[in-house]
Amino acid sequence: MRGKQFVIFGLGRFGISLATTLSEAGYEVMVVDKCEESIQEIAPFVTHAVQADAADMDTLKSLGIRNFDVAIVAIGKDIQSSIMTTLLLKELGIPYVVAKASSEIHERVLRKIGADRIILPEQEMGIRIANNLISGNILDHIQLSSEYSIIEMGILPEWRGKSIIELDPRGVYGINIIAVQRGGVIDISPSPNYILEQEDTLVVVGSNKQIQILEAKRYGK
Amino acid sequence: MRGKQFVIFGLGRFGISLATTLSEAGYEVMVVDKCEESIQEIAPFVTHAVQADAADMDTLKSLGIRNFDVAIVAIGKDIQSSIMTTLLLKELGIPYVVAKASSEIHERVLRKIGADRIILPEQEMGIRIANNLISGNILDHIQLSSEYSIIEMGILPEWRGKSIIELDPRGVYGINIIAVQRGGVIDISPSPNYILEQEDTLVVVGSNKQIQILEAKRYGK
Ligand SMILES: Nc1ncnc2c1ncn2[C@@H]1O[C@H](COP(=O)(O)OP(=O)(O)OP(=O)(O)O)[C@@H](O)[C@H]1O
Ligand SMILES: Nc1ncnc2c1ncn2[C@@H]1O[C@H](COP(=O)(O)OP(=O)(O)OP(=O)(O)O)[C@@H](O)[C@H]1O
Ligand SMILES: [Ca+2]
Ligand SMILES: [Ca+2]
Ligand SMILES: [Ca+2]
Ligand SMILES: [Ca+2]
Repeated sequence: MRGKQFVIFGLGRFGISLATTLSEAGYEVMVVDKCEESIQEIAPFVTHAVQADAADMDTLKSLGIRNFDVAIVAIGKDIQSSIMTTLLLKELGIPYVVAKASSEIHERVLRKIGADRIILPEQEMGIRIANNLISGNILDHIQLSSEYSIIEMGILPEWRGKSIIELDPRGVYGINIIAVQRGGVIDISPSPNYILEQEDTLVVVGSNKQIQILEAKRYGK
Repeated sequence: MRGKQFVIFGLGRFGISLATTLSEAGYEVMVVDKCEESIQEIAPFVTHAVQADAADMDTLKSLGIRNFDVAIVAIGKDIQSSIMTTLLLKELGIPYVVAKASSEIHERVLRKIGADRIILPEQEMGIRIANNLISGNILDHIQLSSEYSIIEMGILPEWRGKSIIELDPRGVYGINIIAVQRGGVIDISPSPNYILEQEDTLVVVGSNKQIQILEAKRYGK
């Protein structure tokens, strides 16, 4: 079984970082950018680096793009190029096309023309860092869906000395405790009789609403 | 105990997303941008929105910035403004200053002048999405510690039609199933009698070793 092959269009900061990470992980990576300088700089670090206009069907065909499993359109500012390239890739039958969007309108257009996954790097990082600053945790706030998240949290003062079964996190707070960390050691299935102490860190899964309520309690809002 | 107060300088996409996320979570958020239009657009969504040049000590003092717990410098392109603002904030004694960098040189300068945390949104998202494309999951591979991770995975062919209790994921694979997703709906505490089907996506926690073994089975590596 051969590994997946990736082709990346556009060498902005997002595109470069994506291309080099995939390449370092041992995957075949082709990059395409219309800027010759960008192509020369990345060439030593990827399988193929081609200077070309991505928004052109003949170019895409001549580069054999239809054989790739995953294409990533990492063109941001030039929205027309981003849209044209994404459309052509879907017309060529690429099974999975990821596209970077610079705004919500851009996102909606990409979705309409068939992009399989759309990334808004700046906006998504804004949300991540905000959640991270709020929870003050090492682990990020992980969104499982629009409804559920996993977070890491300290215990509430009133939980001290209680066992997990006494606390009834699911009944009372609508959350499940996935893991407990004490003194650097993680227990991924704490017993119901586990007694919570001040220094414990919990990893919990729950609805975003319940988690917000808990965090508000913890930070005294 | 009052909640943390945040001040954000620069309303690019990252800054806007950060400010509105913090604000929606119920925190006091002040934003500062030199562009009047950006300020007017965000004003309804934050506690205070002020049109001003951030890279000016008198301005920062007159805005009472020294009372904030966390300052985020979300100025990207204007590197001089980003550096000046970060320096002034540390001189004012803000305990935690987060700064956005647009390149690695920019990052090194911010570190030297005392930024407590530096974010490169485009580059970090590039790495995240690359890892995400490699593992083929929607959810990232989340490292809980050097020993344990949380991942999202499809089911192994031999799990089809089995209940969770029959499968005995903890006994056989050393993993716990935290959540099951079917048809877009997530169940964060599936019953032991839940029958696994081909289309299910599982969120599991386990040791890195066990997870690697499972992923190797799934991808036939
Ligand atoms: N039609 C095109 N064909 C090939 N490459 C293109 C085309 N249009 C734009 N590009 C390339 O896309 C790259 C990224 O473009 P741009 O600077 O707009 O991205 P960005 O979204 O600002 O990037 P960042 O990830 O740094 O935020 C540039 O190197 C540019 O040369
Ligand atoms: N000295 C300054 N004082 C206040 N605001 C400033 C200053 N310099 C720049 N800004 C503001 O910072 C904001 C973000 O700037 P810029 O467009 O460079 O960010 P960016 O990094 O490209 O953003 P994005 O997150 O969209 O990638 C702009 O709205 C700009 O008006
Ligand atoms: Ca090839
Ligand atoms: Ca205030
Ligand atoms: Ca930018
Ligand atoms: Ca950008």
